[in-house]
Amino acid sequence: MNSIKDLHLEFIKNIMVYSDKFKLLDFKTNDTRIFGLLFFEPSTRTCLSFESAIHKIGGKVLKLDYNSSSKNKGESDYDTIKTIEKYVDVLIIRHPEKGFINECLKFIKKPIINAGDGDGEHPTQALLDLYTINNFYDLFQDKPFKIGLAGDIRYSRTIHSLVYLLNKINKNIEFTFISIPQLLPQKGDEFYNYINNNCKNNICYSYSMNDVKNQLNQLDVLYMTRIQKERMDFTFQNNHQILILSEDLIKNTKDNLIIMHPLPRNDEIPETLDNNPKCKYFDQVENGVYVRMAILHLI
Amino acid sequence: MNSIKDLHLEFIKNIMVYSDKFKLLDFKTNDTRIFGLLFFEPSTRTCLSFESAIHKIGGKVLKLDYNSSSKNKGESDYDTIKTIEKYVDVLIIRHPEKGFINECLKFIKKPIINAGDGDGEHPTQALLDLYTINNFYDLFQDKPFKIGLAGDIRYSRTIHSLVYLLNKINKNIEFTFISIPQLLPQKGDEFYNYINNNCKNNICYSYSMNDVKNQLNQLDVLYMTRIQKERMDFTFQNNHQILILSEDLIKNTKDNLIIMHPLPRNDEIPETLDNNPKCKYFDQVENGVYVRMAILHLI
Amino acid sequence: MNSIKDLHLEFIKNIMVYSDKFKLLDFKTNDTRIFGLLFFEPSTRTCLSFESAIHKIGGKVLKLDYNSSSKNKGESDYDTIKTIEKYVDVLIIRHPEKGFINECLKFIKKPIINAGDGDGEHPTQALLDLYTINNFYDLFQDKPFKIGLAGDIRYSRTIHSLVYLLNKINKNIEFTFISIPQLLPQKGDEFYNYINNNCKNNICYSYSMNDVKNQLNQLDVLYMTRIQKERMDFTFQNNHQILILSEDLIKNTKDNLIIMHPLPRNDEIPETLDNNPKCKYFDQVENGVYVRMAILHLI
Repeated sequence: MNSIKDLHLEFIKNIMVYSDKFKLLDFKTNDTRIFGLLFFEPSTRTCLSFESAIHKIGGKVLKLDYNSSSKNKGESDYDTIKTIEKYVDVLIIRHPEKGFINECLKFIKKPIINAGDGDGEHPTQALLDLYTINNFYDLFQDKPFKIGLAGDIRYSRTIHSLVYLLNKINKNIEFTFISIPQLLPQKGDEFYNYINNNCKNNICYSYSMNDVKNQLNQLDVLYMTRIQKERMDFTFQNNHQILILSEDLIKNTKDNLIIMHPLPRNDEIPETLDNNPKCKYFDQVENGVYVRMAILHLI
Repeated sequence: MNSIKDLHLEFIKNIMVYSDKFKLLDFKTNDTRIFGLLFFEPSTRTCLSFESAIHKIGGKVLKLDYNSSSKNKGESDYDTIKTIEKYVDVLIIRHPEKGFINECLKFIKKPIINAGDGDGEHPTQALLDLYTINNFYDLFQDKPFKIGLAGDIRYSRTIHSLVYLLNKINKNIEFTFISIPQLLPQKGDEFYNYINNNCKNNICYSYSMNDVKNQLNQLDVLYMTRIQKERMDFTFQNNHQILILSEDLIKNTKDNLIIMHPLPRNDEIPETLDNNPKCKYFDQVENGVYVRMAILHLI
Repeated sequence: MNSIKDLHLEFIKNIMVYSDKFKLLDFKTNDTRIFGLLFFEPSTRTCLSFESAIHKIGGKVLKLDYNSSSKNKGESDYDTIKTIEKYVDVLIIRHPEKGFINECLKFIKKPIINAGDGDGEHPTQALLDLYTINNFYDLFQDKPFKIGLAGDIRYSRTIHSLVYLLNKINKNIEFTFISIPQLLPQKGDEFYNYINNNCKNNICYSYSMNDVKNQLNQLDVLYMTRIQKERMDFTFQNNHQILILSEDLIKNTKDNLIIMHPLPRNDEIPETLDNNPKCKYFDQVENGVYVRMAILHLI
C-alpha cells in the first residue's frame, strides 16, 4: 500500500468493515507474522499505533532504530531495506523522501505499507480519517458534503492522501482550503496537478481571516493541520495569518460539525478545546489502531 | 499507583503475597494487556525490569522512544500521553518533574504507575525494597528495627518512597540518616514536612565519619544511595565526607545486617564487596521483576 | 558461545542440522525464554537477525538501548550486565572491546552469546557463513577447497571467526588473503599467531591488483569485507588498491563460484552485481535467521 490512488473501492470498503469488526465486535485473530517497522524519520503516533495494532492481532514487531543503525558504517537505505526484508513478513516504511516507497516496490517482493513518504502521501492516516468521518456521516453515499482543510495544504501528506481518498469515494465532496498563499498547492506539485485534473470545481479557497468565520459555519468537517516547518523552503513567520481555533470561532458552526487533526499539533488548536464535543482528534488516534489492524489483517 | 502514601496496607500485603507466588511457586498468568512504557528520563534498570515483568506475565510492551519522538515536531508531553493512552491498557511513566504523574491522573482514565517522578517518589522501588527486607525480617510485626539510609537523602526519590512505606507498615522502625548537611531533607521539602509530622522521634542523624562506625554496628539494614548530581542546586565536591563502604567499615556490623542499594551505583560501594554475603543489591534487582509482576497483575 | 575455537565439531554439525530443520521443514518450537540483546556498539543486521530468530522460536526480546542507558548516571558496563542477567535467560552481547565477552564469562552464570567483540570474533556470523557455503559445497568432507578473503583481513572479526571455523572442520581448505599489507594480520595479533600455528601452509597472499584476476579465477568462494575504518590506527586512503568487484573482474571465474559479504558493504561490491547469480550475500542474511534460531534453540 503505497498510494491511496492505487486502492480499489472494494478494498477500502473492506477496511471499513474490518475496522468495525475489530472495534465493535472484538474480532480476534492469531496472526503469527513478523512486521518490520522502518521509520527513517521520527514518529511517535504512527509508529506506536502500528505497534499496538500488531500486538492486538497477535503479530510480532521488529523495529529499526535508525539512530543506532548501520548507516554509520556507510550502509545505504537500499541495503538496510533489502536486509530487513529477509527478517520480516511485511514492511512498514516511513521515509523523508517523497516517492521513496515507490522506489522500494521495484526491488522488494514482500508487502510494503507506506507510513508517510516526505510530503508525498500517508495512506493509513487517510483511511483512519475516513473511518472517523464515516462514524458520523455515510460518505459512501454520493450526498453533498463540505470539508474544510486548514493549515499546511502544500506539505501535509496527510491532506494529500485524504483528498485523494475522499475524491475517490464521493464526487460530491466540496473542499475548502483555508491557508495562506505560500502554503497552498503550487504549480508543478503532484498534488496541484491532481486537483486540477480531478476535482478543480469542488475546491474553493479562503485566504483571509476575515472570511474564515463564514466558511467555518458551513462545514461538516474541519480538518486542521500543523505547519510542516521541517519541509519548507521559506522562513515561516508565526505571525502569518494561519487559522488558530478558539471557542469564539467555532461558536456558530453546525451542531454536527466534527473537528479533526492528524496530530501532533502545535498551537493551531489550544488544549482548552479538547473537551469540546465537536473535537474528535483523540477519536482519530483511537480509531487508528483498529483501522491499522484491519489493514494489516487484509494485506 | 502514584504515591506510596495512597496505598492501603492490605494492597501492600497482597503485593508481597503475589511476589512470593511468582518467585517461589512459578505462578502463571496469561495477561493479554498492552503496557505502555513512557520514560521521559533515561533508565536501564526500572524500564527493563518492567519489560521483563510484562513478558513474564504474558503481556505486550509498547515503549516510547523519547529521543526520536514527536517532541521535535513541537508536541507537548500532555499530547504524547493522551495519545499513547489510546494504544495501551496501562501506562508506566517516568518523568524528570516531581508531581508530573499526579498531573496526569487528572486527564488520563487508564491506570498509571509512577516509575519515578524527579526527586519525588519511586513507589515500585520501595515495594521491591520492602519485599527484599521482608525476606530476612518480618517487618509487618511491630518489632523494633534499625535502618540506616546513606548518601543522598534529600534528592533520592527511592529513599523518600521507602521511608513513607516503612513508616506506614511499622511505627517502630528507627531511621538513621547518614549524610552531609546539604544532602539531608531541607525545610520546605515535602519529604522534610512528612518526617517532621510523622516520624520525627524515630530519626537520628549521623553527620561525621567519626561516629559512622558505631552507628553502622547497630543497624539491621544499611541502605546506600548514589549522589543524584543531576538534581543538585550546588556543586558537589567528591571529597565531601560521604559514606564509601569498605570491608573494614562493615567488619563489626551485625551478622545478619543486609546492605542494599537501588543501583545504579557510583563509587559508594566498591565492586570488591559484591560477593560479601551481607550485600543484597543484586537480590533487589532480581526481586524487582517478581514485585513488578505482582503490581501489574493486581492493578 | 564466546569463540569459535571453543566449539566442538559435533555441536557445529548439530547447528547445521537444526538450521535445515528450521529453514526447510518449518520446525516449530515454543520457547518461553527471555533473550537479552546488549549491543554496546551499533548494529542493524546482527541485532535484528537475532530478534527475528527469537520471535520465530517463540521467545521474548529484552533490548538494552545503550544510548539512553544508565551509563549517564556513571554506571559501569559490569553493573549493567550483572543487572540484566537478572531479567533474562540468555544474554547476547556485542561490545567494542576485544575479549570483553570472555571477561563477562567470569561473573555471569547464564549463557552468553558473543555477537561481536571489537576486532576479536563474531562466531554466529561464521556459523551462518559456513551454513551458506555448505548449501553449495559439503565442507565436512576433507576435499580441497579454495576460499579468497578480501578487504580488511586484519580488523574483520568476521574473517577471524570464519578462518577458525573452516580450519577446524576441514584441514584441506586453502585461504587466499587479498588485501594491502597494512590490512593483513600483523605480528602480535591473535589472528596472526593462530594462522602461523595452525594453517600457515594453507595460506597465500595477493597484494597487487595485477595478479588478483588470476587468483579469483581459481576460487570456489570469494568472501568480501568492508574496510573497518572505525578500528584503524592509520589513515586509510580510499585510493589504496583494495579489491572493488565488477562484472569484468568476475567474468572468467568458476561457474559455481559463490561471492559472499557479511554486510554492511561500502563500495567494494557495487549494487549492479546484486542480481548476478554468483552473489549470495542476501542468502547469507536470510540464512542468518535460521542459523541463529538453531543456536538459540541448542544453547
